Amino acid sequence: MSILVVGSVALDHIQSPYGKLLNSLGGSATFFALSASYFTKVRVVAVVGDDFTDEHEAVFRKHGIDTAGIEHTTGKTFHWSGKYGENPNDCEMLDLQMNVFEKFQPKIPPGYRDSEYVFLGNINPQLQSEVRNQMRGAKFVGLDTHPFWIGTTPKELTAAIHDIDVMIINDGEARQFAKDHNLLRSANKILALGPKALVIKHGEYGATIFFQNGAFNFGNHPFRAPALPLDEVRDPTGAGDAFAGGFLGYIASQGTLTADVLKRAMFYGGVMGGFAVERFGVERLLSLTWEEIEARFQLFREMTHLG
Amino acid sequence: MSILVVGSVALDHIQSPYGKLLNSLGGSATFFALSASYFTKVRVVAVVGDDFTDEHEAVFRKHGIDTAGIEHTTGKTFHWSGKYGENPNDCEMLDLQMNVFEKFQPKIPPGYRDSEYVFLGNINPQLQSEVRNQMRGAKFVGLDTHPFWIGTTPKELTAAIHDIDVMIINDGEARQFAKDHNLLRSANKILALGPKALVIKHGEYGATIFFQNGAFNFGNHPFRAPALPLDEVRDPTGAGDAFAGGFLGYIASQGTLTADVLKRAMFYGGVMGGFAVERFGVERLLSLTWEEIEARFQLFREMTHLG
Repeated sequence: MSILVVGSVALDHIQSPYGKLLNSLGGSATFFALSASYFTKVRVVAVVGDDFTDEHEAVFRKHGIDTAGIEHTTGKTFHWSGKYGENPNDCEMLDLQMNVFEKFQPKIPPGYRDSEYVFLGNINPQLQSEVRNQMRGAKFVGLDTHPFWIGTTPKELTAAIHDIDVMIINDGEARQFAKDHNLLRSANKILALGPKALVIKHGEYGATIFFQNGAFNFGNHPFRAPALPLDEVRDPTGAGDAFAGGFLGYIASQGTLTADVLKRAMFYGGVMGGFAVERFGVERLLSLTWEEIEARFQLFREMTHLG
Repeated sequence: MSILVVGSVALDHIQSPYGKLLNSLGGSATFFALSASYFTKVRVVAVVGDDFTDEHEAVFRKHGIDTAGIEHTTGKTFHWSGKYGENPNDCEMLDLQMNVFEKFQPKIPPGYRDSEYVFLGNINPQLQSEVRNQMRGAKFVGLDTHPFWIGTTPKELTAAIHDIDVMIINDGEARQFAKDHNLLRSANKILALGPKALVIKHGEYGATIFFQNGAFNFGNHPFRAPALPLDEVRDPTGAGDAFAGGFLGYIASQGTLTADVLKRAMFYGGVMGGFAVERFGVERLLSLTWEEIEARFQLFREMTHLG
């Protein structure tokens, strides 16, 4: 089934001890779409400027991604520039230019309205709510956010997650949003705000999904997926969106929301997030084969399952 | 099969936001022995002072732990005092009195020499090497250490781990010892020093075991065990030793070193480490039932295994 993603498409500058990349295709919708494209059809709603070329758009189309919802407008595309340290958790933001993204008003093309799966990428939570309200027929809605929105628009974010299926954030964001250093208490506080499930990503330690009681008939316990220990994290940019793409892309590809589908989705999320950081920008997400994805999935199983 | 532990027996003062405990039975050998006692017979080599009473020793005996190797000498027992913050990773050491432990020279009673499983708890690495050399017939030797020894006696520690089976340390210790922020590279550097396997504990995120190529016929990948998300960590003291007790205690109870035994040992390590932090001091480790341990083990399986 098709999945609709709303988020940013960006042209980024990225530096890390492993190299440098200028005007590299990035943004939450890009990483999500490329990752999810290995599992299902993806439809993108975003906005870009004059500097977004046919070559950029061809990257999406080559992966079968529907770009009819990418609005072209006058001005420059959203731009982020960051520098990672030896420790990839250390990131210095060098520049942020909202450009055409500043006035982004997501427009859902009529042909996208029947999307049963929706991912609300990291944008203003008011816009996330608006999109969610336009997609009332959706079967499963995921949402990501950013420390900026948690810090500046917590009420709007609380409204945006009220009736979604899954919120997908990282440890720091969960603690910041719940105002609690303890992750389990943070998870319970966030679930009490409405989302049926909450995925908390722990970076190199994997990710955990927590559920509201009874949600998806999952059982009364969380589920944890691993991450592959890597000896080189070349570029962490987009890892969270690649995770979300694997997670939601797999769910959309299955069409049913059983506990086992959700567990496997967590594994595929970890698999895709791990691939994303192995090379710069979207590079690794462009060249994957299904055999590589399945091999990594099997490795995750061997890394976690008793005999 | 019996397992021999060499380490500290202490009388600790512990504070956390959940309460306070004075002169509480503690130390690496104590936490290890109590934890391992649920799996196998344990023999303790340690030293205590005049303030270590019959009641203290009775705690060990009640769990079937052999205390013949606990040397009683004149003076006061090793004492540690610490205060944990709201975040249990924040710990302020208030006092440390080596007392009789300062001149500890581990003496292995003749009746202990046939121990096939050995755990070298956190003591001076030179003493760990001496014990290791006295136990040449051992089938499986584990070793823990502490940032103090990594910082002050790295050469002696390197010698001590040269021909052991498994080193068991935490993230921070692995990075400190390997001088590398990346955990996988740190693991590979440490394995290159000799130990056949390395367990790195990630606290609330579980633990990972890494292997030298071909060791224990494990296969060429690490294995990760979860930790149970807890909404209250009352007292983290001894969690690492309780993990080691579950890990090595289970291995000793099985008698064979298959990959599946090592995987299950990782789960039991996580189970016992998690129990330890739920109450103050050794309290939780005194009152466990086998049913509780097995239930937690099953929960770990449900938390990590695909359907």
